[in-house]
This record gives sequence, structure tokens and C-alpha cells, in this order.
Amino acid sequence: MRDEILEQAGIVERLTSDPTPFVEAAAAARKADVRFVLYCARGTSDNAAVYGKYLATINAGLPAGLAIPSAATLYRKPSDFRRCLVFAISQSGETPDVAEYLTRAREAGAFTIAVTNDDSSVLAGRAHCVLATGAGPERAVAATKTYTSQLTALAQFWSTWCGDRELLGALRRVPAAMHAALGLEEEVADVARWLRFSERLLVAARGYNFATALETALKLKETSYIAAMPYSAADLMHGPIAVVEHGYPALAFVLPGATHAAMLTLVQDLAAREAELIVVEGTAAGAGGADRARRRSDAAGAAGAPRADGARSRWLSFACELPEPLSPLAAIVPGQLLALHLAIARGNDPDRPRGLHKVTRTL
Amino acid sequence: MRDEILEQAGIVERLTSDPTPFVEAAAAARKADVRFVLYCARGTSDNAAVYGKYLATINAGLPAGLAIPSAATLYRKPSDFRRCLVFAISQSGETPDVAEYLTRAREAGAFTIAVTNDDSSVLAGRAHCVLATGAGPERAVAATKTYTSQLTALAQFWSTWCGDRELLGALRRVPAAMHAALGLEEEVADVARWLRFSERLLVAARGYNFATALETALKLKETSYIAAMPYSAADLMHGPIAVVEHGYPALAFVLPGATHAAMLTLVQDLAAREAELIVVEGTAAGAGGADRARRRSDAAGAAGAPRADGARSRWLSFACELPEPLSPLAAIVPGQLLALHLAIARGNDPDRPRGLHKVTRTL
Repeated sequence: MRDEILEQAGIVERLTSDPTPFVEAAAAARKADVRFVLYCARGTSDNAAVYGKYLATINAGLPAGLAIPSAATLYRKPSDFRRCLVFAISQSGETPDVAEYLTRAREAGAFTIAVTNDDSSVLAGRAHCVLATGAGPERAVAATKTYTSQLTALAQFWSTWCGDRELLGALRRVPAAMHAALGLEEEVADVARWLRFSERLLVAARGYNFATALETALKLKETSYIAAMPYSAADLMHGPIAVVEHGYPALAFVLPGATHAAMLTLVQDLAAREAELIVVEGTAAGAGGADRARRRSDAAGAAGAPRADGARSRWLSFACELPEPLSPLAAIVPGQLLALHLAIARGNDPDRPRGLHKVTRTL
Repeated sequence: MRDEILEQAGIVERLTSDPTPFVEAAAAARKADVRFVLYCARGTSDNAAVYGKYLATINAGLPAGLAIPSAATLYRKPSDFRRCLVFAISQSGETPDVAEYLTRAREAGAFTIAVTNDDSSVLAGRAHCVLATGAGPERAVAATKTYTSQLTALAQFWSTWCGDRELLGALRRVPAAMHAALGLEEEVADVARWLRFSERLLVAARGYNFATALETALKLKETSYIAAMPYSAADLMHGPIAVVEHGYPALAFVLPGATHAAMLTLVQDLAAREAELIVVEGTAAGAGGADRARRRSDAAGAAGAPRADGARSRWLSFACELPEPLSPLAAIVPGQLLALHLAIARGNDPDRPRGLHKVTRTL
């Protein structure tokens, strides 16, 4: 798992070096005059799908949602998918319900794109276009590099669709931000040792990084068996925040962009409820150090220092010189490292979690 | 909270007695020639939205998804919503981001329907059509009767849209199934006493009842502060099931219909992992007692009896003479009762949970 986490920057670099498949897929989807977008996926790929939903909705201005795979497999009712763009995302390309969904959506008139790590898979064979994620064989059961390669493919597709040169250019800066995030490994390992007796953890983010919260929580459950509960910061305020009391562990992702102020407000609220806070913070050059220190201190007491009530907050900061829509590619890295090191701190084998297989077959 | 749980059957009866608003809204949406459906909501209403997504996708055969409210509030990019049907669901009708989303979707060409308990609210004023849920004032902070009234309104709308006389007729049998589910209260209170020291609970269902798992978990978090993790049975198999080990508490909803076999397989898997199982089972007249007992015994050892390894399974069965698409209206009742009685067993006030307000304002 650790090797595959380290490989990610190189994979993103390779994947963004050849625009051809993305230009072709975007042109073909444009030609099909699609107006709505649906993503079909399971597990880690479903978290990539959430990211894709934000790109389609916010960047491309298209109504977008996540599909119900069982609509094709369990219920089998006829549908009308004309003018619908369907992405089916699967690392192996062999997830049966995802392949079945794509087949039926295509029959019902959808334009279909497979996002997969195996371009000779069943899924790839059934779609109009294939975006191959080219991450190489993934040996660890918990997916890491295939997740970020799926995000990269989706970001590149939608940047191409929108003709967004700024975003396409910024994709080249993703490897540097990933390296900066990898630099947090020692601090993350320290947090993992601190967290190792906890049976639960709240994980919060917002906007494009909602996918980061979902995927971090999934990795933590897969490798460390902790009850990690992922939330969009807004949904959290609508009820589940009631669980937070003195000493409740909470992880928040604070990245530059439109969600920044809302996330700092949430961090403040969690601190007021006396949560044990871990904040993963991406910083942009624009926000200076002194200003940042002040914001932190406003939000949750002095960084790292125990508060009078004994609860602590830990800030893990890395340089993230990316526009917000690309920040999930780097922000997930500390989440992956936490899942890895929490497994190690608990004496589990992060490469072979208990009771999981690499390809899950559900209908 | 208990009074409002008991009121639900009467509210459903009233709401289904006048088809006029549903006939009018369905006709107006048909006239707008909508082809794609999006739901915008937060909290409990968002769980009703998940149910609505299943109805639109499976019953009406329309691509459907859940909206990103912050696309309107935080990101404010222009969108194209022509031929899109947008449901905005809010008990109070005053949730700012949901109202803002509806406004912008309407400006971008969507046909909009407000589903709200207050037909003089901001939300109702901005939509093309209003489906008033008529549940009366809700005093408990944790929503119960407004949730089932939202499900009823959505079921009635989509049955009307599809011209599905069978489903419209079956809506009249919902109150009886709710009464049958209310009959479980003593057994549920006993389970709550048994569960009261647990800090975590896995909650699983599938298909239309995925909403039941989400809403049960939300109620448990709101009133009992337990780390309740809701899953679609299929997503659970794709990773998170790794958390389940000997003695891990798990709640599964097994209802008649297309998901029945898949849910029994999951119950078997959870039993093999030695979870402490609670199964809420809706039974139809078709499935006889002897057959049922055999299935249970196959799935998870003799009902209620401790197994050799000390783990137990508890089956809570009620008569549910409803087609699968309506079963979530009755299946949520034992979930609500569990949240109520777990709060009581833990010495919390179920009517006024710690740190929550009735109307949550997020942007």
C-alpha cells in the first residue's frame, strides 16, 4: 500500500502528458449532445464518482447525479437515457453490476464512457469510449493509486470539455502538491499512534473535497476497522454533529477555495464541542504564514498545544498550489497515509485487510 | 418524539385521501416535458430524497440524482437545467441553501416542485408547484412524521406520474403496515436496553430501503449519539464490511421484494463474521411462517437464541402487506422506535438532543 501511495505523483504525470483520449472522448460526447450526467460505480470508484459529479455540476453546469446500479440488476425496468452521459468507473472493469448498468444505459440511449485501469476489461469493451487510468497493477487490496488516477482522468475530461486551459495547465502542478502532501508522513504517523485506541472518527470536508472525506473514511474502515463517519460539513450540521462531545476524535480537511470559510467555521464549532481535532490543511502562497497562524488560533486554539480542557488540535499543513477543483488529488494523500499508519499502529496488515477481496461481485 | 411517531399512520391516511395536488403537479411536470430528475435537500429530507431517486429511476425510468446545494450557494456557476425536474424538500421550507438552489434551478430552466410541511414558506413561494405534507407542527427536534409524510408525497406523485393504479391503491394499506410496525415497540425497547453500551452500529438495507438505513442511522446519531454507519448492502460488501468482527453490532432491514435474497445473503455474511445481529423483517402473507423460520435459521442461527460463540441474533418481524416501493414507509417505524428507546435507555432526552436546532442554516 505504501509503495502504491508513493507511485501516485508519477502516474498523474504520465496520465496528463497525453491529451488525445480526453479530447476524443469529449468531442464524441459533445456530438451526442448530452445534457445530463450520471456516474455508476461501487466502493472507492464511487468516491471518484462523487468528485466527477462536482466537476460536471459546477465546472460544466450540467445536472449530474450518481446512478443506482441495482436499477439495472435487481429491478430491470425500462428507462429512457437519451441525451444522458453515463460514466461507469471500475478499477478492474469487471464489477458485474457496473458493467450491466452501462450495457443497459447504452441500450436505453445513453452515451457511455468507461473509466478503468484495464482497457481490455468487460467494461471497456461495452462503452462508446474508454478513459484508461494506466495506474499499473494494484496489489494492495485498499485502492490508492487507482483512485487518484480516476480523479485525474475525470478532471482532465471535464477540463477538456469546458475548454478550461487554466485547469488543464494546473493539472501539471498536481504531482508537486502530492509530493508536498507526502512530506507529512512522519507527522501523520505520529497522529496515527495518538489515535490508535479510538474506535470512531468523524471525517469532514466540503465541496469537491467531500470525495476526500468519503475516501479517507473508506480507507480507514478497510485497513484499520475504525468506525469512520464521513460527512459534507453542511450535512454534518443538519443532525449528526450531535454525536460530538468532549474528546470525540474528528478529522477535517481545510483547502483553499470557496469552501474555506465554511470549513473554518466547522473547525471552530468542533473545537467548541471539545472534539479532539486533526486538521489537514492545504495552503496556497496567497495566504501568508502569519495570517494562517492567526486563523488557526481563532479557529481551534494554538496549533498542537493541549487546551485547558485537555483536548488537543493537530494541524497538518502542506503547500497546495492548486485551484480548488484539483485539490482533492493531493488532499487524499494524508488520508491514505493515515489509513496506512493507523493500520500499522494497530498491528494490522494494511496490504491484506481482514475479510476483503480485490474484486467485489455484487448484483 | 413518541407522540409524533404514533401520529404517522393518521397523517398518511389524510395525505392519501386527496389526489388533486398530485394529479396537478404530475400534469404540469409532464407538460414541461422533463427528462431528468434532481432532488435538493439536507438532513432527514435528504434521506427522503434518496427514496425519491429510487422512485424516479425505477418506477418512472428517468435518470435521477441528488443535487449539490452548494453549487448554487458557494460556487454560483451558471447551469443549464432545461427539461430537468427539480424537487426541493424541506420540512420548514426555510432551509436557505435548498431555497437558493431551487431559485437558481428555476432561473436556469428547471421545472420545480417544493415538498414542504409549510405551504406558506419561502420554498413554497418560489416553486412552480407545492406538495404540502400536512404533518402539522413538529415539536421534537428529530424529525419523524415529516419524514414519512415526505415519502408519502413522493410515492403519491410518482404513482400518479406513472399512472400506477396498483401502487396508488396500495398506498391505502400503508397505515395498517405502520400499525403492525408500531406493535414491535416492546421488543424494540428490549433491544435498545441490550444495545445501550455500544458506541457503534452498522445499519444495512438495500434498494428503496437504502433510505431506511440512512434515516435510521441519522435518528440514532441525533438522539443517542451512537456512531451509526448506514450502508446499502452492496456498498458494504465493497470494503466497509471489513470493520465487522466478533460481537460487532449490526442492524439489517429485510423486506419483501427484489432485494430480499441479497439482504438474506448479507445477514448470512454478517452472522459468519459473528456480528451481534438485529434484523427488522417485514413479512408478506405469501411467505409462510414455517418457510420463514427455515430461512432465518439458515441465515443466522435460531432466532433470538445465543449461538455457541456467544453472539446473538434478534429478529423483529411485522406484517408488511405492501409492494416493495412502499415498504420504506413502514420499515422506518422500528428504526424511529429504536432511536427513541436507545435515547431513553441511555438517559438522554429524545425530544431535545444535545447541540441541535430544528432549522439548520448552512450556505
